[in-house]
Amino acid sequence: MKLYFSPLACSLATRIAFYEAGADATYVQVDSKTKKTEDGKDFLTINSLGLVPALEIEPGEVLTENAAILQFVAARYPEARLAPDDPSGKMRLQQILSFISTELHRGLFAPLLDKTLHPEVTAYIRKRADSRLSWLERRLAGREFLLDRFSVADGYLYAVLNWALAIGDDLKNWPSIHAYHSSIHQRPNVARAFSEELALYRDELARRIAPAPAWTAAAP
Amino acid sequence: MKLYFSPLACSLATRIAFYEAGADATYVQVDSKTKKTEDGKDFLTINSLGLVPALEIEPGEVLTENAAILQFVAARYPEARLAPDDPSGKMRLQQILSFISTELHRGLFAPLLDKTLHPEVTAYIRKRADSRLSWLERRLAGREFLLDRFSVADGYLYAVLNWALAIGDDLKNWPSIHAYHSSIHQRPNVARAFSEELALYRDELARRIAPAPAWTAAAP
Repeated sequence: MKLYFSPLACSLATRIAFYEAGADATYVQVDSKTKKTEDGKDFLTINSLGLVPALEIEPGEVLTENAAILQFVAARYPEARLAPDDPSGKMRLQQILSFISTELHRGLFAPLLDKTLHPEVTAYIRKRADSRLSWLERRLAGREFLLDRFSVADGYLYAVLNWALAIGDDLKNWPSIHAYHSSIHQRPNVARAFSEELALYRDELARRIAPAPAWTAAAP
Repeated sequence: MKLYFSPLACSLATRIAFYEAGADATYVQVDSKTKKTEDGKDFLTINSLGLVPALEIEPGEVLTENAAILQFVAARYPEARLAPDDPSGKMRLQQILSFISTELHRGLFAPLLDKTLHPEVTAYIRKRADSRLSWLERRLAGREFLLDRFSVADGYLYAVLNWALAIGDDLKNWPSIHAYHSSIHQRPNVARAFSEELALYRDELARRIAPAPAWTAAAP
């Protein structure tokens, strides 16, 4: 399987799931600005929305949408127990994946990563933050994981909470969320995935700030 | 089961699923502004996010998040065939539910329903509209349904596309989306659910415009 990802984007959650499952996968980096893959393809031909993650399950069969990809990975590697296998547990996983993707990812933190937002837009988005984070704070109080054990939802929430830190929200007002993030961050497969993607992210930033001279492209 | 809904909100999708399944359910209206239920309760004690739909499966067991509720209803009434029952079909259902909830519902049409938005916010939200609707247009070209047959995802997409019409987007630039919406609208259970909620919506509007005199509350 081939995972199209951008460093520290929400595709980090899929990498974490693969590492937790000990799964073989190929990782293809997508420049989130230019929408080019590292092997020079136009990513919009793979996902016309331009969004990572996109998972090529078989050549020509691409799955998009993080909530769907994470449930697919959990089902593909059942021995890793990355999702509940009873109907009630699956239902609660779907609920929490939907909450993360709509309320935290699309509705809150992904927009705030854009440093060029008009202040009115920032204010509009931040207006919902308290009710969403209060809900999450109560949910995580006294818990190590969102569900009974580590699941794909924890990888997703971790990836999204990283963005809170990236925009300067230190989460200190939300002690349970803060403790949860720190604890997930120390999980070996999570720490490995994060540090690898952080290095790739810094490389990408460096390339943008100081683009390689044109002549290097022609070098042997 | 008890469905907390607001007229013409995305909870319409759950009502459609119940009607398609011929399921018994109780419907409890929530005023989307005051967050009071029709029987005078504070809806925030049922879902602290204040969002419909919320489905009380058993007394005290409440499920939230439309994507999760719709998959639950489909699984509860398998004979209605409101969701694929093979793993690949379920995966595609999850993908499309996630697309609708993140990109169309939370990311596009729900915000635009707010008529008090600052023009910068409206412009920011509308910026993504073309790529999302183009994707959907291609998806629906030559198709009657999102998947092989009617599914809970069609009820959800129908409910969200109603909002496009409500904000004055006539969808005429998107012929496949327009034809799809018209076709789903004519489905008997959909037409019934829509017309019932439209009547409730108009009643709610009328109450807001001309609130009942205080003395009526004390009338026998």
